[in-house]
Amino acid sequence: MRKDYLLDRWVVIATERKKRPTDFAKPREVMKPATCPFDPGNEDKTPKAELVYLRGKDGRIKKAKDKNGFRYKDWLIRCFPNLFPAFTPPEIEKKVRMKENSFLFDAVGAHEVIVESPQHDEHPGVAKLEQLGLVVDAYLDRLKAFSTKPYVKYVSIFRNHGVEAGASLSHAHSQLIATPLVPLTLREELKASRRFWQNRHECPFCNILKRERKSPRFIWQNDGFGVFAPWASVNPLEFWILPRRHQASPLEMSKKTRKDLALTLRVCLGGLNTLLNDPPYNYGFHIAPSSDADKFYHWHIEVYPKLAIWAGFEKSTGIYINTVPPEDAAASLREASEKEEKAISA
Amino acid sequence: MRKDYLLDRWVVIATERKKRPTDFAKPREVMKPATCPFDPGNEDKTPKAELVYLRGKDGRIKKAKDKNGFRYKDWLIRCFPNLFPAFTPPEIEKKVRMKENSFLFDAVGAHEVIVESPQHDEHPGVAKLEQLGLVVDAYLDRLKAFSTKPYVKYVSIFRNHGVEAGASLSHAHSQLIATPLVPLTLREELKASRRFWQNRHECPFCNILKRERKSPRFIWQNDGFGVFAPWASVNPLEFWILPRRHQASPLEMSKKTRKDLALTLRVCLGGLNTLLNDPPYNYGFHIAPSSDADKFYHWHIEVYPKLAIWAGFEKSTGIYINTVPPEDAAASLREASEKEEKAISA
Repeated sequence: MRKDYLLDRWVVIATERKKRPTDFAKPREVMKPATCPFDPGNEDKTPKAELVYLRGKDGRIKKAKDKNGFRYKDWLIRCFPNLFPAFTPPEIEKKVRMKENSFLFDAVGAHEVIVESPQHDEHPGVAKLEQLGLVVDAYLDRLKAFSTKPYVKYVSIFRNHGVEAGASLSHAHSQLIATPLVPLTLREELKASRRFWQNRHECPFCNILKRERKSPRFIWQNDGFGVFAPWASVNPLEFWILPRRHQASPLEMSKKTRKDLALTLRVCLGGLNTLLNDPPYNYGFHIAPSSDADKFYHWHIEVYPKLAIWAGFEKSTGIYINTVPPEDAAASLREASEKEEKAISA
Repeated sequence: MRKDYLLDRWVVIATERKKRPTDFAKPREVMKPATCPFDPGNEDKTPKAELVYLRGKDGRIKKAKDKNGFRYKDWLIRCFPNLFPAFTPPEIEKKVRMKENSFLFDAVGAHEVIVESPQHDEHPGVAKLEQLGLVVDAYLDRLKAFSTKPYVKYVSIFRNHGVEAGASLSHAHSQLIATPLVPLTLREELKASRRFWQNRHECPFCNILKRERKSPRFIWQNDGFGVFAPWASVNPLEFWILPRRHQASPLEMSKKTRKDLALTLRVCLGGLNTLLNDPPYNYGFHIAPSSDADKFYHWHIEVYPKLAIWAGFEKSTGIYINTVPPEDAAASLREASEKEEKAISA
């Protein structure tokens, strides 16, 4: 049994139930629908875009938004409110405050779709690097837009890939949910990292990356990012992407670092894609919710391939069973990512 | 957004994403395998039974266990170690103690299969009441056997129904996992219920049941048990089964209460089965891990139909989105359970 770096969360690395990472590979199901509401030409099937990226006549990227009665058609990235939102903006934009011991709270916030490409299948694992750079830029633009809203306490950016991972549409897209409270997982990470910082005067994530880079769980790195399978991986083939310099929020990334992130996503998700023949996965950003946490919190992305089902035991205990030791996962992902990197630069 | 009674866990009841409970019904996939290792006659395909229930010549139930070279064939219930265990007994039975700030721990414990019937498809939702009574008895026998082991701190009893809920074999069976630490979910429930008890001198679960019995979330009851959809249901159609008298552990059940539990499972899982055409689900017992908790912890069963997929948002924030308001879930389950009850007594 292994405990997470920070959270009080245990996982059983069940060697008796061991599977080789590649045992999870499955024939890919193609699920391109007859009509995709995210495809170019179908802009009227979704709400007005709050942000589109367009190619200007000078070849540079321009930003715009749909106006009443007009929707851009020739977009490269398109962001709009989710038609079935879990969180919705309040009528009047103001601070929301939760009462102590509250059991009910308005789900004010926002729920957006970020369509990552006009090409239906241009997912991060196969995307052109330039396009993926635009995806990263769009994440930051929308993160910035919602971070400043008075009713927003946290902004979650995440991606669901494949039906088994909860994607209801197959067109390449990510989502953003802005919430009126700091989510539990973040609060627990913040509490534990604050304690670590108080004891050691070091960011726990900087410390983790320093150690994991020298471990058999290391997968890949470039100037900006380090990638590894975490010590107490809860999911088979799980990996985390951490900026190598201490940063509390992705909004601190330089232009160069954004490009490094696009390459990291392309290489590591491309590696996963090749290794297991396009498996389903989820990824989510973990971001410091406020500037108080600048010193001890370190933003990162956690990637969870969806290769197992959490069943009665996990759901009733909070203990997880993972059949793939993270060291084996890292060895497979390392090899696959290195191949992917060569293929891209060739 | 609703918060759980005790845990710091929030769920969005997403009415914009609303589905009627019956929208989840699916055509049933039959997945009876060519050879089932749990079927009678195949006892040699699984480890020796630690406990079997047999029908004696006098018609009464006898208990026995397989011996080397001999396996009982005419069993009604059969319990044996899982062939692919997540937790295994230590070589020497002794107390295990975790070091402070430990990140690694031996997964000592046990992992057992409880085959619920010689009939492949005799699942709780369709089982004969007498057979289900034996299942309840077997749960208690195995709970008792493992609770007294020096290396065991908690015993989890759970059931996975259907492939989508993580069942790898379709023969009616439950599982038991004994762990060397008290799981996180239990520790959090215990902490919150202890605090409630210190403030109010009342068991929080007795208080919850008292209030929910009068709420639109109430589903069904008999002398022994009350069933309701919890206020902050994380899963569509989730329901909880609580003993009406305060009990910290199922080991406190009288013979009569055990029968009441068998009927409750039959009626409510039968109702779910009829309502959604045999949907996948998980259930798990929540039990006080030690006698310190006797006053403030109240054992119960949580049933989680598997009708949605937790995706990137849930996994990276710990906030859940549920598309079915528990009040709607309860209305549907109440009607279905009442019908089921009539059908059984007819």
